[in-house]
Amino acid sequence: MKTIEWKGNAVVILDQTLLPHQQRKLVCRTVNDVARAIEKMKIRGAPALAVAAGMGVALAAVKTNTTSKSVLIKQMEAAARRLERTRPTAVNLFVGIRRVLAAARRGRNVSEIKKRAVSEALKIASEDIEINKKIGMHGAKLIPPGATILTHCNAGALATAGYGTALGVIRSAHKSGKKIRVIATETRPLLQGARLTAWELARDGIPVRVVVDSAVGYLMARGEIDVVVVGADRIAANGDTANKIGTYTIAVLARHHGVPFYVAAPLSTIDFSLSTGSDIPIEFRSRAEVEHFAGKKILPRGVGAINPAFDVTPARLITRIITEHGAVEPSKLGKLKFHAPNL
Amino acid sequence: MKTIEWKGNAVVILDQTLLPHQQRKLVCRTVNDVARAIEKMKIRGAPALAVAAGMGVALAAVKTNTTSKSVLIKQMEAAARRLERTRPTAVNLFVGIRRVLAAARRGRNVSEIKKRAVSEALKIASEDIEINKKIGMHGAKLIPPGATILTHCNAGALATAGYGTALGVIRSAHKSGKKIRVIATETRPLLQGARLTAWELARDGIPVRVVVDSAVGYLMARGEIDVVVVGADRIAANGDTANKIGTYTIAVLARHHGVPFYVAAPLSTIDFSLSTGSDIPIEFRSRAEVEHFAGKKILPRGVGAINPAFDVTPARLITRIITEHGAVEPSKLGKLKFHAPNL
Repeated sequence: MKTIEWKGNAVVILDQTLLPHQQRKLVCRTVNDVARAIEKMKIRGAPALAVAAGMGVALAAVKTNTTSKSVLIKQMEAAARRLERTRPTAVNLFVGIRRVLAAARRGRNVSEIKKRAVSEALKIASEDIEINKKIGMHGAKLIPPGATILTHCNAGALATAGYGTALGVIRSAHKSGKKIRVIATETRPLLQGARLTAWELARDGIPVRVVVDSAVGYLMARGEIDVVVVGADRIAANGDTANKIGTYTIAVLARHHGVPFYVAAPLSTIDFSLSTGSDIPIEFRSRAEVEHFAGKKILPRGVGAINPAFDVTPARLITRIITEHGAVEPSKLGKLKFHAPNL
Repeated sequence: MKTIEWKGNAVVILDQTLLPHQQRKLVCRTVNDVARAIEKMKIRGAPALAVAAGMGVALAAVKTNTTSKSVLIKQMEAAARRLERTRPTAVNLFVGIRRVLAAARRGRNVSEIKKRAVSEALKIASEDIEINKKIGMHGAKLIPPGATILTHCNAGALATAGYGTALGVIRSAHKSGKKIRVIATETRPLLQGARLTAWELARDGIPVRVVVDSAVGYLMARGEIDVVVVGADRIAANGDTANKIGTYTIAVLARHHGVPFYVAAPLSTIDFSLSTGSDIPIEFRSRAEVEHFAGKKILPRGVGAINPAFDVTPARLITRIITEHGAVEPSKLGKLKFHAPNL
């Protein structure tokens, strides 16, 4: 079952808000459908958002009846603006949009623009799987045989076009016969660890158990975690990394206990335009996510909630950032800059 | 609304599993009713468990028709054994049981034994409120004006006979006009923070907001937490403190960010018979608590969960332990030993 598919006149998304108990496909026929699916986190994960947003822009192109090249480009730019307003933190979303727009602008006529837009969106998706396999290969070398790996949220096939970043590392280590085991944090408030990571890994036959987020300290103190691998939503030029809320807490615990802390992400997640993590915009989501669960209100009347969706882990707490070009210390991220696409 | 009440031939408990949306009283007419209420966490919190277990033993005494002193004592000892099997970590439960048994044994006949048992159980409850007010008074001195206080789980009126330990400190600081604000972690898996602490504080007009457990690192990194105050389920002689799972994670974060970390607990929570925290028995609860929420299964089929209910925070991460005899550094806990009841 694919995270996201291009159907020529629609984008089909596996609705991640219903997993693992329902596997339902959501057919997005308009840019707004795609944008709303992103806002409601029916699709999420930085690399998957690059694909979804890229396909959203391509959808705007194939759906229009205009015969004017400039009108077409304007419509695609409007689609881009709508999609850019969905979620602020994952830089890949913006990269996906920019790539499709840039490819489209190279078209000489309406038909070529449409073709190039679709082709670029599909390329983002197919490249992503290849990139994840490379990340997996580089990352697996860092995983000791028999290791128990902690991961947070879902940086898996569902967060990408397929295979996954952090879970790509875990898949590669598993395939190479290292007999690894995984502990997945449930990842409140939306439970991507309990619902998505556990589901993905169990389907692949990789041993996985779930804990509440607050149990990580307990497990580390008992020596039950050998290594942490997480994904990323945006990495600043100095290696500071924004990822799902709770990642920073785990990084502090890992440092306290001497556990290696790895971030697995494609080069497209690195935003070389931002010098440090304090420049990364952090999304605050509706407090209803904390107030309610499974349709049931948890909080008493009149009590508020604070719901930051991400936090920033400073580079000094990160052992290595694992990209498709190898695993580097955060301070050496600059060496990868020449590989980065110039958009 | 009282956490727990003695009704002469029954123990009435406010069912905490239904709060905040239902305020329902549970009438326990037998020792087994009390034991099951404890096991199902309809009443929880170390000091409240002392009261509940003590009243449970007293209930066994008043409910029997025996005219034999030795049979009565045997029946009370059987009740004690049933109650001791409910939950292993909070030492107060065992202290409450031992106090009522010891008082009963001083009775010269059946009628006096019954009277002494009930009177001791009621004394545990009434003393507890006085103790909490003293803890509150000592603790409030440590809270800076305008402070934002983080607390975890519920160490409030609901966890005690009334007023609370950690929330007693917060209540005292609030009453003294320090204009404090509270951030309560939701406290997965059973959400005592979101359901109980938020409810208690909102009723008292103390500003409180709720965050997911994993957001504590984010808040501390932004300087949004001035002080942490939590309760305790058992404190070893060296100051190592068992408390709700996640407490240790918060203590590591507090140390990393230079935030004072206070434990508020009555002297009866200190187990001077255990030299360090590694001797404290940690309860593992059903993994169903992690697997399900509000009757809905979260985890995919075939995926396990690990559900430790407590963790141990080493003394070196604790700034002060706040007792009814003052706030002391954990290393100086021994000085309080002469105040401790000899049971």
